[in-house]
Amino acid sequence: MSTKNTATLLITCPDQKGIVAGIADFLYQHSANILHADQHQDAENNLFLMRVEWDLTGAALNNENFADKFSPLAKRFDMQWQLKLSQKRPQVAIMVSQYDHCLADLLHRYQSGELACDIALIISNHLDCQRLAEFYGVPFHHIVVNKENKAQAEAEQFKLFDAYNIDLIVLARYMQILSPAFVERYPQRIINIHHSFLPAFIGARPYHRAFERGVKLIGATSHYVTEVLDEGPIIEQDIVRISHRDQVEDLIQKGRDLERIVLSRAVRWHIENRILLYANKTVIFD
Amino acid sequence: MSTKNTATLLITCPDQKGIVAGIADFLYQHSANILHADQHQDAENNLFLMRVEWDLTGAALNNENFADKFSPLAKRFDMQWQLKLSQKRPQVAIMVSQYDHCLADLLHRYQSGELACDIALIISNHLDCQRLAEFYGVPFHHIVVNKENKAQAEAEQFKLFDAYNIDLIVLARYMQILSPAFVERYPQRIINIHHSFLPAFIGARPYHRAFERGVKLIGATSHYVTEVLDEGPIIEQDIVRISHRDQVEDLIQKGRDLERIVLSRAVRWHIENRILLYANKTVIFD
Amino acid sequence: MSTKNTATLLITCPDQKGIVAGIADFLYQHSANILHADQHQDAENNLFLMRVEWDLTGAALNNENFADKFSPLAKRFDMQWQLKLSQKRPQVAIMVSQYDHCLADLLHRYQSGELACDIALIISNHLDCQRLAEFYGVPFHHIVVNKENKAQAEAEQFKLFDAYNIDLIVLARYMQILSPAFVERYPQRIINIHHSFLPAFIGARPYHRAFERGVKLIGATSHYVTEVLDEGPIIEQDIVRISHRDQVEDLIQKGRDLERIVLSRAVRWHIENRILLYANKTVIFD
Amino acid sequence: MSTKNTATLLITCPDQKGIVAGIADFLYQHSANILHADQHQDAENNLFLMRVEWDLTGAALNNENFADKFSPLAKRFDMQWQLKLSQKRPQVAIMVSQYDHCLADLLHRYQSGELACDIALIISNHLDCQRLAEFYGVPFHHIVVNKENKAQAEAEQFKLFDAYNIDLIVLARYMQILSPAFVERYPQRIINIHHSFLPAFIGARPYHRAFERGVKLIGATSHYVTEVLDEGPIIEQDIVRISHRDQVEDLIQKGRDLERIVLSRAVRWHIENRILLYANKTVIFD
Repeated sequence: MSTKNTATLLITCPDQKGIVAGIADFLYQHSANILHADQHQDAENNLFLMRVEWDLTGAALNNENFADKFSPLAKRFDMQWQLKLSQKRPQVAIMVSQYDHCLADLLHRYQSGELACDIALIISNHLDCQRLAEFYGVPFHHIVVNKENKAQAEAEQFKLFDAYNIDLIVLARYMQILSPAFVERYPQRIINIHHSFLPAFIGARPYHRAFERGVKLIGATSHYVTEVLDEGPIIEQDIVRISHRDQVEDLIQKGRDLERIVLSRAVRWHIENRILLYANKTVIFD
Repeated sequence: MSTKNTATLLITCPDQKGIVAGIADFLYQHSANILHADQHQDAENNLFLMRVEWDLTGAALNNENFADKFSPLAKRFDMQWQLKLSQKRPQVAIMVSQYDHCLADLLHRYQSGELACDIALIISNHLDCQRLAEFYGVPFHHIVVNKENKAQAEAEQFKLFDAYNIDLIVLARYMQILSPAFVERYPQRIINIHHSFLPAFIGARPYHRAFERGVKLIGATSHYVTEVLDEGPIIEQDIVRISHRDQVEDLIQKGRDLERIVLSRAVRWHIENRILLYANKTVIFD
Repeated sequence: MSTKNTATLLITCPDQKGIVAGIADFLYQHSANILHADQHQDAENNLFLMRVEWDLTGAALNNENFADKFSPLAKRFDMQWQLKLSQKRPQVAIMVSQYDHCLADLLHRYQSGELACDIALIISNHLDCQRLAEFYGVPFHHIVVNKENKAQAEAEQFKLFDAYNIDLIVLARYMQILSPAFVERYPQRIINIHHSFLPAFIGARPYHRAFERGVKLIGATSHYVTEVLDEGPIIEQDIVRISHRDQVEDLIQKGRDLERIVLSRAVRWHIENRILLYANKTVIFD
Repeated sequence: MSTKNTATLLITCPDQKGIVAGIADFLYQHSANILHADQHQDAENNLFLMRVEWDLTGAALNNENFADKFSPLAKRFDMQWQLKLSQKRPQVAIMVSQYDHCLADLLHRYQSGELACDIALIISNHLDCQRLAEFYGVPFHHIVVNKENKAQAEAEQFKLFDAYNIDLIVLARYMQILSPAFVERYPQRIINIHHSFLPAFIGARPYHRAFERGVKLIGATSHYVTEVLDEGPIIEQDIVRISHRDQVEDLIQKGRDLERIVLSRAVRWHIENRILLYANKTVIFD
């Protein structure tokens, strides 16, 4: 992991001629050395989406002056945009219940330098993962959730997110349904892992239902959380083959490997500003 | 393709001690050289399922005397069984509409000797595939189907199936819904290809719906046809990765490769007597 | 298949600031509506590679005036470039021996409109595929090749390639080694399918060697042909899982499905001008 | 993880009629309730291979009397056999250098109950993994290896393997080549993970060589260690797709996910007595 010093710009705007020329010229005028650029046109929705990353070394563009300098172009093309700096590491909170495989995986990747973020905080409604959190030196907060105290528990969670300046919330097999207020508060900032290839087996006990249906493949799906359960924009999916020899426990065990990988990819892409949303879909700039 | 001379026995019965010993001893007593044997126990349903294939050369068991000799054992263990001979090639009918990719694929495999059956007959509600059928020398019957004549059209189809002694009906993208009477007449003898990873996108236009949902994988599923649409026992599934760059047409095109392979595997396994059904699931003895 | 009217520009040049701005501005000045643009930087080799496709309708750029107009920019950045028009369909020759599965697959895709080219010619050292060629209405030329007549046979082949203005030669399981003179004559214009995941099992009988080695996956590789056997730039690879139950014939049969798909992808990408070569590697602009 | 109480018998012998009948009858006579049975015939080598697992509860067969009772049958068919009891957990040693991803993965699976063994011991030539070992409560031994002390270091290792009654040695990215004496001492008891799809990229730096060759897939291979480097019987392989956008570091990062999964499958299958070796190949009874 080099500590690179780059800026990443994500843009969405109505498609028209001259956008790429405008952006490329703007960056060239400001001595920005483009490292990666990728774009996507959605003809049906007449949308232009772009990701461009440049080296900040020697560039006459920085976090302070960018908005001022870029705003004429942004206005001309009616752009929505975000600028992210590689050196401002996103602050991530992980929420988890008792199953610790996704948490353990994310923490190991974090420690290995695979994730360019700070895992600032772990919140759990159980105590099972506390020791693991301590091993990796991440603050662990135990907040019990039940039918009676849900609003209060979420208020406590919000307070922690504020205190830690959390940019992204990862539900690493967190077995509680978030309230609409929670979801609304963090738009496009909550990533969940669902243990099926959505839209198959929405809801509870997907492995059991996959077993009963007799499918030959099981899957996992990472997605942004929106108000409707398991209906948010899909970020990544993968599958593994099963056979009649596999019992439900085997599905659960094979599925764990999928969940780990599919969730970790989503988190990494989000952190690296590779994801743009539109029309309940994601564009992944790889 | 060697013209092998073997018998395959498929057995389903309640699980208990002594079944394998009973069968193995029976075959040994009749000088049958076992080539392959595979079994599966379903603990939940207390079921024993087995496939055993032996060389008929030198065996004191043949199509004529098998039932007589085997019946004491079958009674003792309350078995349901079927015996299939490799030299009695199953007679297959293919039903197709306008998309010819699955048909072309099956015909090419058939000609290459990959499918140990006779493709005896092609029935279509369109004329598009007639030339292809002729190229491969397979009789082609054009039976128009519409809302008014459905029962009559199916009666005509039944007559053809009878005339050709059809053992298996393959729906190779046949875009008509079969009547309950049709389905009931050929239990576990109709294989369909559905262009999604079931149970996702049951019903019409699965690629369009997959595109709208923004999935990252598309799939195809081959299954036996039962009375409920797309709910029959799944035989095989496979998927391919897509991205935001893929439009609906790209999904359709990538999907064709899946459909071909997933349908052809199901047909081959059926023909080679590798499939046992129970509880709306399949056991595939590979 | 819409008959689209677009131009595709492929560029390779040393990387430096301002390239994207230069190209985007050039296209904007000439009223070209960019449909797709993708680029790649190879930091190690300091290379910039780009593919950009625009709508020719209304653009002040066409095949006649492009070179003149673009040359100042091309010189400034020391570019190598090619311009391809979607309406000038590449002329493709397929060479094949006895195995017809890749040929049958390509012809079916061609007929379905999946390949935006003309399959102008089939050359074979056997007669097995003649009937198939005739069915699809493609001229078939039988040229026997043996140790004695190789140079003469190739001279005949060259004559045919010239007569048909062939742009691309596809070796669809053509079981003859091309002479260095042949390969040199068609640089980056010969695509081969090798039935292993290169660089494993270079050379003859890869399935037999895969079986002997006891691998758990078999593969196929499509690549450009260069002077060294099976060492050319890889375009596409894929694999399928096998087990101890699979005999060599099963590997060959499973491999056919891979070969078809892996070869067809390479042909389609080449035809759609999605491939750029550098350093014995390919960039696939998808 | 239930603590099941079963016995697993692995058999290899020359193929002939009556083997299955003999074994099934033997188990039936001794009231063994067969839970799983699978067999494989290798026609080319005239070999019969079988795995059969039965419930020890109520069976008149146990570890003490099995050899006596089974030996007449074993002699009659010239069998090589091993009996393993689920309640005698294999003792496993893991050897590791600095990369800890495979170790962390195995330890997490072990703790989750996914591996029916005891990880008795970790040996490393570095200190990096010590903390991780302690977290999971596994004894950690630091044994420095260099050119001068190799024999002495291995002698120390042997002493530890003896002290801990080690049944299986797992090389979890252990970056030292074992001496022939080491390999010979533990036949079919050392599992290694190699970070390529063997036989491609045997030896050092496979990801770098994969990058240079421009492959479109990278792989990982777990295998038993034999005297010739990377030539031992392959247990499992898997691959992941890469593109021109992936640099060597991306290959290494994507490869880590493969290595973890491919190694863990091999370890689990070995521990569950699912692997039989013959002719430098493995049969995996799944």
